[in-house]
Amino acid sequence: MDRLKSQCRALLFDVFGTLVDWRSSVTSELAAFFASHTELQKHAKKVDWQAVALDWRARYQPSMDAVRTGERPFVILDVLHRESLAATLEQHQIDGLDDAMLDELALCWHKLDAWPEVPAALQRLRTHYTLAAVSNGNKALLENLAAYANLNWHVSLGAEPARAYKPMPIVYQRSAAMLALEPPQCMMVAAHNDDLAAARALGFQTAYINRPYEYGARQTKDFGPESDWDISVDSLSELADIVLK
Amino acid sequence: MDRLKSQCRALLFDVFGTLVDWRSSVTSELAAFFASHTELQKHAKKVDWQAVALDWRARYQPSMDAVRTGERPFVILDVLHRESLAATLEQHQIDGLDDAMLDELALCWHKLDAWPEVPAALQRLRTHYTLAAVSNGNKALLENLAAYANLNWHVSLGAEPARAYKPMPIVYQRSAAMLALEPPQCMMVAAHNDDLAAARALGFQTAYINRPYEYGARQTKDFGPESDWDISVDSLSELADIVLK
Repeated sequence: MDRLKSQCRALLFDVFGTLVDWRSSVTSELAAFFASHTELQKHAKKVDWQAVALDWRARYQPSMDAVRTGERPFVILDVLHRESLAATLEQHQIDGLDDAMLDELALCWHKLDAWPEVPAALQRLRTHYTLAAVSNGNKALLENLAAYANLNWHVSLGAEPARAYKPMPIVYQRSAAMLALEPPQCMMVAAHNDDLAAARALGFQTAYINRPYEYGARQTKDFGPESDWDISVDSLSELADIVLK
Repeated sequence: MDRLKSQCRALLFDVFGTLVDWRSSVTSELAAFFASHTELQKHAKKVDWQAVALDWRARYQPSMDAVRTGERPFVILDVLHRESLAATLEQHQIDGLDDAMLDELALCWHKLDAWPEVPAALQRLRTHYTLAAVSNGNKALLENLAAYANLNWHVSLGAEPARAYKPMPIVYQRSAAMLALEPPQCMMVAAHNDDLAAARALGFQTAYINRPYEYGARQTKDFGPESDWDISVDSLSELADIVLK
């Protein structure tokens, strides 16, 4: 552990679920959007917005699979979110949104609240480590999210510059390359065991943050570390306590 | 002009020569490096370090041409700088540097001083426009430069994420895409007419900043605007005066 820590120069953060609580945020955004449009108010009270948010998110991995398999050329997550939103609303028999409304609502993933301890922990970490977002979110989404949720990382990398989606190796490799670092100098930080497994296979250090409420009652995995990650903690402030010691 | 300005959301900056004075900085870095290594002091006094800096820079465009033509797969500018440095030192018959010294000295391009008005002008601009570095420098170079020279842009894009070198169209196009903007919403800002011509051909707005001292006595072009760029000025503060009016 000490040997590993000593060569660590950068922390690479997964974002959705690890740094931000997308479930509560998207649920609130959906409810607010429908409440604020007169022509949509017929839906406003009878819909379970959390179920819509979760069903929308359930299309996330399958939507990226088409890119991962090469079936589809790379498109950014904003595009996938827009398509998944249309399908999710149809699934819930929610109609009445025109194209401009769908465009706008799809971007609610640019405004997600951080888990409570995250902004302050990033501030503590940023003077000692290079902090990089290594997310499947596109650059504009990440930059907007950083401003909205006060996520003061140094740089956003990940899917869009690599034109691939995690856990494809090229995403981790290009992100390290853009920091001019080797994998062992980088620690991938995520609330998802599969993200860490992909990073470890390439030589990255790994830190697991437990977020058992990410999916609320629908959570089916990631209730704890499933491997001997270099660090496993319950919050980003705990991680900071360890790597700043 | 007013119609163009009104849709402008982001300023995309060329960096070397436009925001930073690489000539003076590299000259100083070279002199300081040789003066600080006892085994190299035989060279320290008899070499014209500015000539070395300019000869090193003269290899810049040819080194990228190999990538532009497809003769060579994309490699980052740090790698090209390292190769060009070795060739330049040989040209000047300067010997005695081992590999570690060459590695270190090649990175002096990460520490360049800004032209005097630049940091304050970027501060004025950044609350009204998204500021992006769109440079042939690699990401680590740009991030280090931003910290060193107080270049407070929002995001660094350009060659490395696009895996191509300006003026290849994909560099401008991918940079706009990563900002989720269309070319007409972006203004390329550069001290080089050819950079602006490439951007304009793709629909970008253009701003020329005159830097007639970039190459010192060796300057052979870019003494003024060679086309009707949307804006042509002598400094970044003048540009700020215009686009913030």
